[in-house]
Amino acid sequence: MTYCVAIKLDAGLVLLSDTRTNAGMDNISRYGKMHSWEVPQERAIVLLTAGNLSITQGVITRLEKQIEMTAVDPEVETILNADSMFRVAQIVGETMRQVQERHREGMEAQGTAFNATVLVGGQRKGGSLRLFLVYSAGNFIEATADTPFFQIGEHKYGKPILDRVITPQTPLEKAKLAACVSMDSTLRSNLSVGMPLDLAIIKTDSYEISERRRIEPDDKDFGRLSDAWSQALNSAFHDLPHVF
Amino acid sequence: MTYCVAIKLDAGLVLLSDTRTNAGMDNISRYGKMHSWEVPQERAIVLLTAGNLSITQGVITRLEKQIEMTAVDPEVETILNADSMFRVAQIVGETMRQVQERHREGMEAQGTAFNATVLVGGQRKGGSLRLFLVYSAGNFIEATADTPFFQIGEHKYGKPILDRVITPQTPLEKAKLAACVSMDSTLRSNLSVGMPLDLAIIKTDSYEISERRRIEPDDKDFGRLSDAWSQALNSAFHDLPHVF
Repeated sequence: MTYCVAIKLDAGLVLLSDTRTNAGMDNISRYGKMHSWEVPQERAIVLLTAGNLSITQGVITRLEKQIEMTAVDPEVETILNADSMFRVAQIVGETMRQVQERHREGMEAQGTAFNATVLVGGQRKGGSLRLFLVYSAGNFIEATADTPFFQIGEHKYGKPILDRVITPQTPLEKAKLAACVSMDSTLRSNLSVGMPLDLAIIKTDSYEISERRRIEPDDKDFGRLSDAWSQALNSAFHDLPHVF
Repeated sequence: MTYCVAIKLDAGLVLLSDTRTNAGMDNISRYGKMHSWEVPQERAIVLLTAGNLSITQGVITRLEKQIEMTAVDPEVETILNADSMFRVAQIVGETMRQVQERHREGMEAQGTAFNATVLVGGQRKGGSLRLFLVYSAGNFIEATADTPFFQIGEHKYGKPILDRVITPQTPLEKAKLAACVSMDSTLRSNLSVGMPLDLAIIKTDSYEISERRRIEPDDKDFGRLSDAWSQALNSAFHDLPHVF
């Protein structure tokens, strides 16, 4: 499995993903699920992927190929020249549909799950910062003030903390901590989600990825955060009133 | 869905279940999932059920019927005269298998899910306090010191807190709070789990249900606990070091 979370705040986007992919418990490997593109001063886009790896790799490869093709034919529409983030989400959705169509029959015959989901976040100059969740069928939804975050993959363990602390007004630094705490709870409770992690930040109206960081298993900062949260939770728990 | 949790401590058993059953989002009803039996001074048994309601009701009805039959034929083996808790788990498993066999063909034809799981906890005089998880196939596993709790139904939201605070040495009062906090996180994040709740405690070597309480949506104690936990979590979160 996978756990990816993207939080859309007034101040910007926080994106965090793990890197574990497994085909059964005995076949675990490491694949980055965060893919980012920048056009300096013009747009920054991050995709997070979950689900069948052959499908999500197919989507990313096709998106890259479209971008390469613009060297020959600048008229080709890509996520880097699309005229809105909404159109970017549509292109990802269309690409998803093409990859699904190509492989569905063969995969269905094998009984393989071909579900895949992609989080698409970013901003282009002239538009606002947006975050979309693209489904296997190519359709998508957008994050709004009522639900300012999306999770894909193993989302349940890490949802309670996000439900409690995230609003559109949450500062970027706090949301970064919330994403990490949400990931930490998931890592502790589910083996199919694993280190290292990929973290990215896109500040509103910056048109760039202002931070991109790989968090390795021995990352001291993440370790400190994880320990601090563990201690805080334990002491919060032990200070609860004995109402029963 | 459902959320039930049972925690086996040195000091006793804590059991907590919700009461929401749904056949689709538009068909929600209330069914108790906690069933208990006592033979004064001799044994106390609690069952928590999750999964297809027709299956779990079938299991409970058959177990009750076996008990009624002992009025006519005292030789009939039931969960109230079985000579060990292990045998009680076997009887529940055998009953599960019978109910599954009776309905499987028809349900398969309809494409209905017939999964069901039962937590079986309790103690009889002469034996130790034990906790089992019975699967749809009638097989079962037992809680041990390494894994002193079982969850059935929507278990993921409420697992992180249990993973962090529960050990066999946890006092009963603390475990009761942990079960409630685990339930509270689940209630907040998943609509298919709902109030009221049923709570039961079996103290080690007491051979009785020392506490049995229905927690209604307006329960002041549960409300206080929920608020206190929410505040504690929020302040724990806001006190986290800004490591990133």
